[in-house]
Amino acid sequence: MVSIECIAPENVAFDETMSAKEAREALASTVRRAKELKIPTVILFEGWGASGKGYMIEKLISELDPRGFKVYSIGGATADERRYPMLRRFWTKLPSYGNISIFDRSWYREVSISRVEDGLPHKTVELYYDEIREFERQLADDGYIIIKFFLNISKEEQRERFEALESSAATKWRVTDDDHRRHKNYAKYYEAFAEMIDRTNRIFAPWHVLDASDKKLTARTVVEIVNRTLTAAIDEKLAKKGDEDWSRKDDAIDYELAERTHANPIPADVRVDMAIDPLPIPPLDSYDLSRIVTDEEYKVRLKELQNELFKLHNKLYMKKRPLIIVFEGWDAAGKGGSIKRLTSGLDPRGFEVIPVAAPTPTELSYQYLWRFWNTIPKTGHIGIYDRSWYGRVMVERLEGFAKRREWVRAFDEMNHFERSLVRSGAIVVKFWLHIDDDEQLRRFTERQNTPEKQWKITDEDWRNRDKRLGYHISVDQMLSLTNTPYAPWYVVESNNKKYARLKVLECIISEIKKNL
Amino acid sequence: MVSIECIAPENVAFDETMSAKEAREALASTVRRAKELKIPTVILFEGWGASGKGYMIEKLISELDPRGFKVYSIGGATADERRYPMLRRFWTKLPSYGNISIFDRSWYREVSISRVEDGLPHKTVELYYDEIREFERQLADDGYIIIKFFLNISKEEQRERFEALESSAATKWRVTDDDHRRHKNYAKYYEAFAEMIDRTNRIFAPWHVLDASDKKLTARTVVEIVNRTLTAAIDEKLAKKGDEDWSRKDDAIDYELAERTHANPIPADVRVDMAIDPLPIPPLDSYDLSRIVTDEEYKVRLKELQNELFKLHNKLYMKKRPLIIVFEGWDAAGKGGSIKRLTSGLDPRGFEVIPVAAPTPTELSYQYLWRFWNTIPKTGHIGIYDRSWYGRVMVERLEGFAKRREWVRAFDEMNHFERSLVRSGAIVVKFWLHIDDDEQLRRFTERQNTPEKQWKITDEDWRNRDKRLGYHISVDQMLSLTNTPYAPWYVVESNNKKYARLKVLECIISEIKKNL
Repeated sequence: MVSIECIAPENVAFDETMSAKEAREALASTVRRAKELKIPTVILFEGWGASGKGYMIEKLISELDPRGFKVYSIGGATADERRYPMLRRFWTKLPSYGNISIFDRSWYREVSISRVEDGLPHKTVELYYDEIREFERQLADDGYIIIKFFLNISKEEQRERFEALESSAATKWRVTDDDHRRHKNYAKYYEAFAEMIDRTNRIFAPWHVLDASDKKLTARTVVEIVNRTLTAAIDEKLAKKGDEDWSRKDDAIDYELAERTHANPIPADVRVDMAIDPLPIPPLDSYDLSRIVTDEEYKVRLKELQNELFKLHNKLYMKKRPLIIVFEGWDAAGKGGSIKRLTSGLDPRGFEVIPVAAPTPTELSYQYLWRFWNTIPKTGHIGIYDRSWYGRVMVERLEGFAKRREWVRAFDEMNHFERSLVRSGAIVVKFWLHIDDDEQLRRFTERQNTPEKQWKITDEDWRNRDKRLGYHISVDQMLSLTNTPYAPWYVVESNNKKYARLKVLECIISEIKKNL
Repeated sequence: MVSIECIAPENVAFDETMSAKEAREALASTVRRAKELKIPTVILFEGWGASGKGYMIEKLISELDPRGFKVYSIGGATADERRYPMLRRFWTKLPSYGNISIFDRSWYREVSISRVEDGLPHKTVELYYDEIREFERQLADDGYIIIKFFLNISKEEQRERFEALESSAATKWRVTDDDHRRHKNYAKYYEAFAEMIDRTNRIFAPWHVLDASDKKLTARTVVEIVNRTLTAAIDEKLAKKGDEDWSRKDDAIDYELAERTHANPIPADVRVDMAIDPLPIPPLDSYDLSRIVTDEEYKVRLKELQNELFKLHNKLYMKKRPLIIVFEGWDAAGKGGSIKRLTSGLDPRGFEVIPVAAPTPTELSYQYLWRFWNTIPKTGHIGIYDRSWYGRVMVERLEGFAKRREWVRAFDEMNHFERSLVRSGAIVVKFWLHIDDDEQLRRFTERQNTPEKQWKITDEDWRNRDKRLGYHISVDQMLSLTNTPYAPWYVVESNNKKYARLKVLECIISEIKKNL
């Protein structure tokens, strides 16, 4: 069994000639520099009841510009929050670049307090550790600074503090029945806390376990640690500034080789979690685009499939399973038409179409998956993405909006994102609507020449056609790297629109059935 | 007693040579034009259980581009939603310009279903009518199209529909115990519905009460009404296009008169709800800016006031009252410093500072108050606004970001907004931090010459100084028009920073005490 080990005092020694207030002022000036450099910071406090989390936060922020941070007090998840993956409510509370979120309890609540009190099974706790580690890794990779404090006091100390609070009418209400119950079961919580710290202590998000028996000293230490961590982050960011230029170049596509051999090798620096391991998927060139259906067949089959899907949606609703459908594909491949056939048979109160365009300035001031965490459907609902997070490894890669190191790690991050969804009960299906070059040209020209359809075609569509080879290679790589067993890709032969629409419905139905 | 009167069929006659599908396609094309013109649309359905709301929505959207609308199914408010003003959850579901929100039940749920079932007192229902009328008026003034349907069926018809649903295993679950209970009390709900329609039938947001006994005919009628309403809105918008230019000019400030006489008459076209009627407030020029406190006095008094506020915050928390504090004032008047003194004594888990800068593109695609509805504090919490919605009648007015007709009606809209907050239990206090021209120049120069303070001063600050007279006049008008009994302004003499900080704390404390 692991135990809770506090940091040795000499490891957080500070300049004793500086008053506590001066130290806080120094921190405020560091925070201002971090803001200028757009460094986002997450600071969280875990620990025993009455260990002084509120006091630490109060001291920590006392000299900070109140416009730069937010404090979140995390209770148990509400009924509504439980209809989403565990981490969603924390994703939505992240700071944007340059700002600070401070958490009084955090996602660790789920693997400590809630673990003991809701009697979470061992398997769930393991999954949560896994989710948390990945969450923090993704944030750290994106430049977030994560500072985690655990405030430790002994059972004896806790009892004394409760008694002190209860001895005054003004503070008596702060000690709740929950506190007493937890105090009695100190040993049980100790075990959970110790394991939690042990399992989630990572180099990019280390735990600072503090002996919190002396409040003032602890507060001074907290200020010191935050100041040091941010100062280091500032230095590192300044040192890296020159590096940014090369990193936008995509040297991973060998166009000549690709033209010659149709081989699209995965960039050497892409790493995908072996625990996830995508399934093989045939390359785009291997699909037979001549497939068609007759008008007669289409009419009959479409009705059948829509009716079947309607019934399955009811089942999803009753079983509280969300369904997430991703549509990607070439411009003019028929995403809009397929989505319309998909939704027109559904109860409109149970689905939502999420069109994904270029990110807004607000969205650009968070990690790129943030905006998708904000739109995922709740249990029983269907979320239909018209384009998706995969833009990261297509348009953002090819246009240089994402740096090389960003899109290279995105494959793995998206696999993890989808795994979080699936672990929370979701069914995930992904489509690539495939048409060939000639068919795309035909459709573009038709749109251009039909007044009611001109709104569908822009100069950018024409420009993208010139980049078709680059996209082709990127899409093949994307399919190979993200075709996971739990969130499969379907390449849909779409030269014939009706064939494509039926295939989309069939695939969705078969995935639902497989998963129910 | 009022009764529910359906629209006479001849008033919604339609071209019978057009099939239902053709009518829906015609609607889709109208919706596309409305989107191009950035017209936002709200469509809501109220009516009896099993009157076919879901079916109507399904038909209505079947040919629409699914990326342009969202459907919301409105249940009773959750515990979390109850911690905010009644309308907040609807403000957050409004469509942005060019889009459509469709509601299956809506804010009218509160004055119909919930009214009967939660036994809301008459007074609350009256307030809700009032809030709803103002909500819809503000939206309509901003260019939102509001289309309200009530689907009417007789008690007999309802019984038959329930029986039909219950006769099949596939649809049996759709009839709930609630449905049966409501059916039994048909007369009670009838009364509530009839009154609701009667009280909220406005020219800019009329009720379309439809006899829904024939589902297909009703769906066709719904499509017809939406198409007609949107077509009229499109025509009106196109006709108005030429008018926009003049409307940006602010011809309401007579600078010469103002310089000469120090009189700042209210523009003649400003109207303020007589039910609200602001209290008189002295003009800016009448405050004595020479007031000071000694350092000694400041130190002692600051601690006292902070302690007192800390205790009052506990009381607010226990009584579940939110507190909203607005800081406005001249550049460099000391808003940041006052906010810091205010927050540094508070429990950081119970307040939030909301810095208000120029609206983002997302925020600009909604009515201007939308972003503030999204940030109001919940019960027991303190929301501190560093600048606020009053930007509408200062910077947006003077820089021409708001059209004349927009800022002219904003005074009244903001009064109503604050009344909604107060009615939901909030305490609202507003500060204008006042310094004179010389003091501002002194502070600007000091900032410019102090390296650590240079970040606080921008070219725009200097430019704004040139517009001081315009601001002076606008501020005086703002104070006179929005100094309501329930959300008073305090002009704080701020040439002496310490005096100002104490006065801010004193005013907040006195307002809390007055309201608890």
